[in-house]
Amino acid sequence: MIQLSTRTGTVLLRIAVSDDLDAILGLLADDPISASRGDIASPGDRPAYERAFSAITADPAHQLLVATKADELIATMQLTVIPGLARVGASRLQIEAVRVRSDNRNGGLGAAMIRWAVEQAPELGCTLVQLTSDAARVDAHRFYERLGFTASHVGFKLSVPPFR
Amino acid sequence: MIQLSTRTGTVLLRIAVSDDLDAILGLLADDPISASRGDIASPGDRPAYERAFSAITADPAHQLLVATKADELIATMQLTVIPGLARVGASRLQIEAVRVRSDNRNGGLGAAMIRWAVEQAPELGCTLVQLTSDAARVDAHRFYERLGFTASHVGFKLSVPPFR
Repeated sequence: MIQLSTRTGTVLLRIAVSDDLDAILGLLADDPISASRGDIASPGDRPAYERAFSAITADPAHQLLVATKADELIATMQLTVIPGLARVGASRLQIEAVRVRSDNRNGGLGAAMIRWAVEQAPELGCTLVQLTSDAARVDAHRFYERLGFTASHVGFKLSVPPFR
Repeated sequence: MIQLSTRTGTVLLRIAVSDDLDAILGLLADDPISASRGDIASPGDRPAYERAFSAITADPAHQLLVATKADELIATMQLTVIPGLARVGASRLQIEAVRVRSDNRNGGLGAAMIRWAVEQAPELGCTLVQLTSDAARVDAHRFYERLGFTASHVGFKLSVPPFR
């Protein structure tokens, strides 16, 4: 359990367990861009989320993290270590799915989480930390630049139909 | 072994083996942006590349692919499956480190490789294919858009010092 200091108090960061799933889905649904992509915490989607949760927790390359305050889950992020040959065999620490509950934003929690992730990178054998942020999230871009990231790349996405 | 049709003939695509490493490092060094990041196929860097190669091939989440023509290695790319909760538990197929030897560009090989990767995505359980491309690679951006990708995201990177 890691303690993160924020302007509104101490927050605990830990690996997610299956009992956290509903609260994490609530965080996704609380984000308009996620909600527009179908993350509305619908009960019918629960099996798909459970399969995804199992896949994440089954491989030590991934860490699904949650932040709690007064036993309430208020933020999440996923870290993935990706080995590669480029950049002299650099492993990359990829940050995905950063979400902070709307009533806990602007208190420094997101920054504390990202800073913590960056601090872990060397111990995880990574010399590069990377993430993509939706082009519509202009505030998030300034946020990542303040934390030392460079907007050096264009992030391309292509949705494909599920396997039948 | 997969056969890819290009405008300059058929190319074979397969999983890389350790004997391919020198040729892959040659491809990285053949790319000015990679070379500027230190990928100059220096013998002193060989242990770091070998460690990275072992890490990639040890986890079935990764596929390091090479394309050959007349037994010469002319292209490479790495695919990684990343499970996640967002987008209703979508796994993402991430494409990294796409390189085509300079004397084999503009023949449709890169496009054939990316199309093949996109076709694999559903069978790998992925409903999203993603990659980032250096902002300086303007031709590559048009290339990915022609293949159906949307430049919807900003890619942020942060280099961190290696663990001592």
